[in-house]
Formats: sequence, structure tokens, C-alpha cells
Amino acid sequence: MEIFRVVPEDEHNIVVEAAFRKRGFDDAEARAASRMAAAATRHGNRTHNAIKALHLDHLFGSGNGGCVPGARIERIATPFKAVEVWDAHKKLGQATALDAIERAIRLADEFGAGTIAVDNAFHYLWGGGYVLEAAKRGYIAYTCCTAALTEVVPLGGKFPTLGTNPHSWGLPTTEALGYPLVIDWATSVVAMGRVQQLAREGGALPPNAAVDADGNPTTDPLKAVSLLPFGAHKGYGLSLINELYAAFIGGSTPTLRCRAPVENEKQTPAFYFQVIHPESLAAGRFAAGRTQKENVKAVLADIFGHGNEGCTLPGQIEARAAARSEKNGGLLFSEAEIAALNEIAAEAGQGQWKTETLRIAE
Amino acid sequence: MEIFRVVPEDEHNIVVEAAFRKRGFDDAEARAASRMAAAATRHGNRTHNAIKALHLDHLFGSGNGGCVPGARIERIATPFKAVEVWDAHKKLGQATALDAIERAIRLADEFGAGTIAVDNAFHYLWGGGYVLEAAKRGYIAYTCCTAALTEVVPLGGKFPTLGTNPHSWGLPTTEALGYPLVIDWATSVVAMGRVQQLAREGGALPPNAAVDADGNPTTDPLKAVSLLPFGAHKGYGLSLINELYAAFIGGSTPTLRCRAPVENEKQTPAFYFQVIHPESLAAGRFAAGRTQKENVKAVLADIFGHGNEGCTLPGQIEARAAARSEKNGGLLFSEAEIAALNEIAAEAGQGQWKTETLRIAE
Repeated sequence: MEIFRVVPEDEHNIVVEAAFRKRGFDDAEARAASRMAAAATRHGNRTHNAIKALHLDHLFGSGNGGCVPGARIERIATPFKAVEVWDAHKKLGQATALDAIERAIRLADEFGAGTIAVDNAFHYLWGGGYVLEAAKRGYIAYTCCTAALTEVVPLGGKFPTLGTNPHSWGLPTTEALGYPLVIDWATSVVAMGRVQQLAREGGALPPNAAVDADGNPTTDPLKAVSLLPFGAHKGYGLSLINELYAAFIGGSTPTLRCRAPVENEKQTPAFYFQVIHPESLAAGRFAAGRTQKENVKAVLADIFGHGNEGCTLPGQIEARAAARSEKNGGLLFSEAEIAALNEIAAEAGQGQWKTETLRIAE
Repeated sequence: MEIFRVVPEDEHNIVVEAAFRKRGFDDAEARAASRMAAAATRHGNRTHNAIKALHLDHLFGSGNGGCVPGARIERIATPFKAVEVWDAHKKLGQATALDAIERAIRLADEFGAGTIAVDNAFHYLWGGGYVLEAAKRGYIAYTCCTAALTEVVPLGGKFPTLGTNPHSWGLPTTEALGYPLVIDWATSVVAMGRVQQLAREGGALPPNAAVDADGNPTTDPLKAVSLLPFGAHKGYGLSLINELYAAFIGGSTPTLRCRAPVENEKQTPAFYFQVIHPESLAAGRFAAGRTQKENVKAVLADIFGHGNEGCTLPGQIEARAAARSEKNGGLLFSEAEIAALNEIAAEAGQGQWKTETLRIAE
């Protein structure tokens, strides 16, 4: 089993915030970045942690004009009361998304459902993190966004014109299960990072995960140049939804997104958030006199009864990781990850961790 | 190529309405049934036409207490302004869904997004039909429901506790493409009808589409007893969403749904509808001075350019079928389907079609 060491969360946050401030972000943005990075690591998400956040900023963000430190979100006036449209002016994605989910919750409290559409956004990293936050607080939440780069070929095509476009849902099931259900995935079978890893280390891709330069499916990572949507026409449709929502909000042509700057063009992703107050859905006529929460619990007990007790529920892995983090009193990182964090600390002029002095996680 | 004959839509509607009135439904319900049956056939949907509608009513509906002719929809009072909850009191699903999408459109006009949650529902047949209607009128629309029977095994389980739980999205792309995008499918790889057809006619199921009695995946239709979700954990998560939405609304334990009556229980499906006014999402800052509609067109032209011109778009098959129906001036049915319609006509005391006198469709 891989060894993880325990990094105290406050130490992690100090380093991450210093690294973001060094890049010009203000205190509130730096705190949003550290908060979401800590949340990712706490829930066992190793692909969207602090290291990835800073790498993304390096590739597409504050150094490249894709993200503007200190940008102020502008709310566009519309006559629609339960849907807001924001121009994020390329503000840090984590700060924008945390504000958006908070505002969507307030709209859901009033209207039953609250929607925030965000134009001129910058990558928010882990969509699951925002809906998990809302679901922990008792709300049904959904987000989708356009992924930075178009790496996915539409079904029957040959050129990648779709992002890996993720969808994330959070459902308030803590009373029923002990944790919220989080349904959170990209619409490609695998990420491009996985193709590159297999190309380096050897091994085959799953079938119908990638295509070669001619648009023919291949399992050879060395021949794969673009990705395919999962589930044939079904995942393809789900990926189109993100592109269309973005098109309605304000995203320009997908193949320009986050690429080398093109004059007089718009190259930003767009975000879509929606929060539903669960009480707004309740007809109040639950069987056997159950409350809504008792009903949700009874439904889940039925689904995961009858010999289905061994199923893994979406959100369960994250919940187990969070319990392990809590038990160990900190965030769990591999030694390679701590080395990467130390590079970040050095860049930000912060002291470094001595790996061998950090407790090994149980 | 299969031969289709042209049935005039008004003749079709007279027969379908008579059949529903014969079963006790009122005029408005009968009209909703004929309207949705005609829409299905017009768009080439042969699994949710009039024949299926009456078969469903026979199996689960007015003859079995699952559907109550003449039932009145009751709106439950809640403090939430953009979300309504209805108790359909088992009203015909097509009539309920048409009312719901209409009301959701009116809420979207006012609030930007309008949601209708329906408890005590009866099967609405073709979810795609309702969102297509809304998308033709310029709205973004979504619906999901719990399928009648639990036939799908959760990932890693062995007992079917999930429905084939469909999701349907409609997107207003008529200006851009000539027709609305309709993304509409069940969350199982195949329908149980397909398993039964292969069992009768011979042939193998696709991999990971079904399980045997022990929960092991099988491609043998004779060994298959339950279905699997598409796309592994991704389709599984999407299927859970329908069950959870239903649980929040008022659906009881899934395995009882539409089964033999259980005293003091609730065995009805639930519906969820949401319509978004596209203008409510527009930040108005489209690249190159484009309008929202021009932007959607530019995004789709980019996705389906670059060598991707041959891709099939979701909604395209339906649009082609509708064009063919229009060109032929009626609804297109196979001769076997006309024989089935004639049985329905006879049951309803209506005159029958002489198949050979009906024009063969171009």
C-alpha cells in the first residue's frame, strides 16, 4: 500500500496561499484556492489538489492572461429573478465557483432553485468539490463547465472539438448514508493525462477511449491523438450539453478555448451552477408517513439491499478518504506529492517540510 | 428498405382518442395521448407510439389502478416561487407532462428557470417528446423520471433495484441547425425488450449490458435476467439521480414501483421537469459582436467542422423523420404496425384501415 504522510492543514494552507499571493492573487482568492485544494486532498482527490491548481495557473492562468488576479466579478442585469449571469472577468475559478455556489444556495432558499451562469471564467478545478459543499449543507447541487482544451472527438468525427466537459451532482444524503452522494466525472472515457501516462509506462487504453490521427479508435497510447466520449452517443450528448450551455452564456468557438491568443476573440471557459432546495420538491405525501429524509433513506436502503450491499456508492470513496484524513488529523500526501509541495513552498519563499518528520498516515 | 405506409394524422388521432375514451379517459386526456403518439411516430420513434401507449395502459394503467382516467392534478402549496410540486393523482402521463412543460415554460419566462416536480405520476412514455416541444419553442428543457419497473442492477450488485431511468434534454438550436438538439436515452445499455427480442431471434447482447441471476455480466440473452447501466459508474450515477429526485419528491421504495399492489404503500413513478429561458443565461458578451443565436451557430459550426461534418447529431434522426412525414403528408407506419392499429380501432369501435389502399411512403 502506498505510504501517505500527514501534513497539517493549516501548514498546507499557508504555503498554498503564499504561492497564490506570490502570483498576484489577493488574500480572498488565495484563501479560496487553499480551501479547495485542501478539500480535494481531504477527499482523496489527487488529480485536483494544490499541485494541479498551481500547475494549471502556470499553464493557462495568471502568467498567460487566462486568469486575472484581483479581478472583480460583475453581475449582468437581467429581468430573470432565479437565474443570475456573471462576467467573472477571468477571476480565479475557485473563488468564482465558491461565490457562485453560495449565491445559488441563497436563490434556492427563496425560489426553490437557483442558477448562476458564469461567462469569462477560468478553470475551477474540481466541480465535485462545490456540489459536495452544497450537499453537505442539505442542498441538491449541479455544475458543469467547458474544459480548457478541446481533446475529444464527437461521435463519428475525427477532429477534437469538444472538451472533456465534466458534470457534477451532489445530493444531500448525509442523514441516509452518512455522507452526500457525489456523481462527478468527465465525459471522456479517460483523461489525456492517462493516455500520456500509458504512453510513458506502457500498457493499452480501454477500447473506444481514444482515436488516432484519422479518427479511428485505437487502444495504442502512442497512436492516440484525441479522446472519445464515454458511452457512445450518450456521453457524446452529455459533452455537447456543456458546449451548448457555454454557447448560450458567452463562450466562443470551442477549438480556440485556452489556446494561443487570437486577436478579437474570446477564449474563456464558462460555468453553470444550479442548486435546488430539496423541500421545494417535496409533495409531502411520502409512503408510510415518512418524512422526506426518511423517504430518501428508505429508497437508498432498498437500492442497496437485496444482495446489493457490496456496491460502491458515488461519494463513498471521497467520504472514506475524508474520514481517514480526519482520523489522522491532517491532509494525506504521498512523498512524491510532498516533494512537489516543497517546490511550491520554495517558490513562495516558505519553509519546507522535512518529509521524514511527517507522521505516516494510518 | 422497410416499407412504410402513410396514415393521415387526423385519422390516426380519431382512432387513438376513441381508444383512450373507451378506457374512460376524458376528451382532453385522449387528445394529449393522440398528440404525443402522433409526435412520436412523426419523429420516427417506433417504441413509444400509440401502440405502446395503449399497451402500457393495459399493463400498468387504467385497468390496473396505476392510472386514473379523469384524475385532477393538484398543486401543492410551497413557499418556493420558481419550483412547483404537483400531485398528479395518477393522471395519464402524457396529459400531466404536457401541462408540466407548459407551466415550466411560463415559470422560465418569469424566473429564468422553472421546475415542476410531479408525485403520484403515471408513465409519460417519451421524455424526448416534451423537451423537443419546448426546444422548438426556443427553450432549454430537461426531464427525468423513474421508469416503471426496476430492471437494472447497481454497479457491483446483483439484484435489479434501479429503473432504466431515462434523461432527456432539448436545446433550442433550430436557427443554428434547422432542428433542436434532443439528447434522450435510458441509463441502461439496452432495454429489456431488446434482451427478449435477442432471446427469441438469437444473437448476443453487447458486453456489460446485462447480468445473470448471480450478478455476473453475460452476453447470452437466455441467461440475462437484469440489465446494467451504461458507461459503468457514470451511467450508474445518472440512474441514481432519477431515483433520488423521485425520493425527494415522493416516490417510495423502487422495487415496489408498478408491481403487484402492496397495501399502505405507494407504487407510482415521479417526474421532474425543468425549463430554462436561454436569454436568462446570456451575459451578452459574445465574441465578434455575435448575438446569442449567432454564437450558438458559430459554436456548432466549429464542433462539426474540421472534418467532423459527417457526425450524426442527437436530434438529427428525429428531424429527418419529421421531414419525411411532412413530405408524405401523414404518419408513417409499417404494415405490422397498421395491423396493430387496426386492432386498436376495432377495440374502440372505429373503422379499420385497408392497408393496401394506404399510400406507400417515399
